[in-house]
Amino acid sequence: MKYPNGIKTTGNKLINYSNRGMGLEHLIDDSNTYYLENDIAIIYKKPTPITIVDASFDSHGRVITKAYFKQPSTLDYNGIYKGRYIDFDAKESKNKTSFPLQNLHEHQYIHMKNVINHGGISFLIISINNNIYYLDGKDIINFIENETRKSIPISYIEDHGYIIEQKIRPRLNYLYILDLLYFKEDMYGCKKEKDNK
Amino acid sequence: MKYPNGIKTTGNKLINYSNRGMGLEHLIDDSNTYYLENDIAIIYKKPTPITIVDASFDSHGRVITKAYFKQPSTLDYNGIYKGRYIDFDAKESKNKTSFPLQNLHEHQYIHMKNVINHGGISFLIISINNNIYYLDGKDIINFIENETRKSIPISYIEDHGYIIEQKIRPRLNYLYILDLLYFKEDMYGCKKEKDNK
Repeated sequence: MKYPNGIKTTGNKLINYSNRGMGLEHLIDDSNTYYLENDIAIIYKKPTPITIVDASFDSHGRVITKAYFKQPSTLDYNGIYKGRYIDFDAKESKNKTSFPLQNLHEHQYIHMKNVINHGGISFLIISINNNIYYLDGKDIINFIENETRKSIPISYIEDHGYIIEQKIRPRLNYLYILDLLYFKEDMYGCKKEKDNK
Repeated sequence: MKYPNGIKTTGNKLINYSNRGMGLEHLIDDSNTYYLENDIAIIYKKPTPITIVDASFDSHGRVITKAYFKQPSTLDYNGIYKGRYIDFDAKESKNKTSFPLQNLHEHQYIHMKNVINHGGISFLIISINNNIYYLDGKDIINFIENETRKSIPISYIEDHGYIIEQKIRPRLNYLYILDLLYFKEDMYGCKKEKDNK
């Protein structure tokens, strides 16, 4: 059985990918296709990094016969919106009362800080307790640098984040939040970044 | 035998990856590491996209047991430099007198145009006839839209492109060309894009 993003069945046992955010990723991929087709933004999910151990040839061409998944050192999605560099990730939290920070690897956190320092926009889209939130990278950094807790309580996400509306087209209009935070003054000559704090 | 980027030996037969630009890619990856470590730019190579057909578990964790390479719909490298979105690819031309455009897939060409239309910077780094050139996306688009030829002659690359100097650190300072083309007036208040034509 073949799936586009690496979900598969082994015999009758469906591998559980829910902790990797597949449902949420599907909504985002679908929205990105909408943004691309309507010339709104160019945002792609990066392929999952793998380490190839063995490969050969078969009737379809080169075939990988042994490979392992690698831990990514960046976030999964990046691209360009209204001239700005965008870099983010999708996270599903099984915990309904807080978002465990172990879901954001250290490399990813450093990458997020780097992106913001270089003038890009970075954020997480977090699915938690039946809502999908936009949480800006600056708010994530503020939390991690000022708190000792190993998870972000939902109250912080509710206070600093934004619920992303689920619609038909696009399924998840997360760029609307960027419009509110970063592009409100974009129409007046000299581009001025609106800080989201 | 294990290699980071998917080169491998099948028995005694070394698969020839030279037409996929591995030597050039190594120079660029090395330069990107330099840029990252020195906080100059954040540019990563995207993992090669694959379609997973079969996977299972072994003692090391999840293992892919059958997968095929997919043709990428974007360019291989992207990231951020001086606040601008950067998107490019590395191409090695075996032909010494021209760069065959079949090396740039249609999806990649459309992607390049999209990126420029959205305010990003897109280009190719072309290794040809023992030199490594920067050729701006706008010049590639101009050529393709105004010429019927299926390859870019080296005279066009020499006239419109820029030789990238090979040094020790970084090995290939391609961002210097961006400085010349896009960031000369960057120090004066309101950011003004310098067109490279």
